[in-house]
Amino acid sequence: MERHFEKGLEQVKERLVWMGSLAERAVHQAVQAVLDSNAEIAQRVLDEENAINEMQIEIDEQVMKMLALQQLTAGDLRFMLGVARINSDLERIGDQAVNIAQSAQRVLRHPRVKPYVDLPRMSEIAEEMVRDSLNAVVHKDVELARRVLDRDDIVDSLRDQVFRELLTYMMENSAVVYPAFELILVAKNLERIADHATNIAEDVIYIVAGRDVRHPALDRR
Amino acid sequence: MERHFEKGLEQVKERLVWMGSLAERAVHQAVQAVLDSNAEIAQRVLDEENAINEMQIEIDEQVMKMLALQQLTAGDLRFMLGVARINSDLERIGDQAVNIAQSAQRVLRHPRVKPYVDLPRMSEIAEEMVRDSLNAVVHKDVELARRVLDRDDIVDSLRDQVFRELLTYMMENSAVVYPAFELILVAKNLERIADHATNIAEDVIYIVAGRDVRHPALDRR
Repeated sequence: MERHFEKGLEQVKERLVWMGSLAERAVHQAVQAVLDSNAEIAQRVLDEENAINEMQIEIDEQVMKMLALQQLTAGDLRFMLGVARINSDLERIGDQAVNIAQSAQRVLRHPRVKPYVDLPRMSEIAEEMVRDSLNAVVHKDVELARRVLDRDDIVDSLRDQVFRELLTYMMENSAVVYPAFELILVAKNLERIADHATNIAEDVIYIVAGRDVRHPALDRR
Repeated sequence: MERHFEKGLEQVKERLVWMGSLAERAVHQAVQAVLDSNAEIAQRVLDEENAINEMQIEIDEQVMKMLALQQLTAGDLRFMLGVARINSDLERIGDQAVNIAQSAQRVLRHPRVKPYVDLPRMSEIAEEMVRDSLNAVVHKDVELARRVLDRDDIVDSLRDQVFRELLTYMMENSAVVYPAFELILVAKNLERIADHATNIAEDVIYIVAGRDVRHPALDRR
C-alpha cells in the first residue's frame, strides 16, 4: 500500500507542476497580448484553456483514488486535501489568464494608453509567485512558500500604483477612459492570480507544518 | 463507524450553513455600508471577519478527522473533498465582503455618485446565490444548484451595465473618477462573490452526480 501511495504522490506532483507551467504560460502570453496588442497570442490563450481544465479533472480523480487507499497518515490526508485545493487555485489562475486575453482583444479596438505603467513588472512577479508556489508544493519547501507570501504585498502595492496612474490619465483625458479601464481590469486579474499563488503557498505551510497560517490574527493555537 | 460518519456529516453541514449565513450577512452589510455611506457598518464587517476565519479552520479539522475514518464510500470521499473546497470558497466570500467594506470607507471621503446604478440588485442576486448554493449542499439538491449556475450570467450582465454607467459618468465629469472607480471595485467584488457561489454549486453537482460540470466544453465523458 505504502509504495502504491508514494507512486501516486509522485504522479500527482508531476501533474500539478505541469498544470502550473501551463497556467503560468497562459498568464505570460495573455499579458504579452495586452502589451503588444497582439490578437493572435490572445486567441492562443483562449484555445489552450482546455488543456488546463482537463488536467484539473485528471488530478481530482487521482486524489479521489488515493484517498480511497486505507490507513493514510494524517500527513498524507493533509497533503491530499491541500492538493485538491491547489488544483482549484491553478484552474482559476487559468481562468484569469483567459480574462486577460479577452481584455487584450478589447484593448485592440482603442488607441494605445502609453506607457503601460507597471503592468509588466506586476505580471512578472505574479508569474514567479505561481512558479515558486508550485515548487514549494513539490519540495515541501516552507521557506520558499513564505517568500511567495512576502511578494503578495509587492503585487498589491504595484496594483495601487497602476490604479493611480490610470485614474490620473482618465481624469486628464476622457478619451482614454475605456482603454485605461481595460488595463485596470488586467491589474485586477493579476492581483487575483497573485492571491491564488498566495493560497497555494499557505496550503504548502499547512501541509508541511500541519499549521494553519491563513489567518495570522487567529494565531492562538 | 457508519453512524460516526453520519453524525460528523450532520455537524459539518450545520457548520457550513452557519458559515454561509455569516458570509452572506457580511456581504449584505458591506454593500449597505457603501450605499448608505455608513462607516459604522463598514467597521462591523471588518470586526466580524474573524468569526468566518475561525469557522474555516474548524471545518477543515472536522474534514480531516472524517477522512481518517476507514472504509468511506466513493460518495463520502467526494462529499468530503467537496466540503474542503466549499469551505475555501466561503472564506473567500468573507474576504470579498471585507474588500467591499474597505471600499465603503474610502467612498465616504468623496462626493456621492448617484444614483447607485444596479449595485443593489447585483448584491441581492449574489447573496441569494450564496444562500441557495449552501442549501443545495445541505439537501444535495442538484436542481437548486443548477438555478445558482443560471444566475451567474445575470450577475455578469449587471456588472457590465454597472461598468458602462460608471464609465459614462467618468467621461462626463472627471471629478467623479475616484468615487466611481471605487464602485467599479465593488462591482468586481460582487462578481467574484457570485463566482464563488457558482463554484459551490458546481461542487454540489460533482458531489451528488459524481460528474464534473465545471467544464462543459469537455463534456465527452
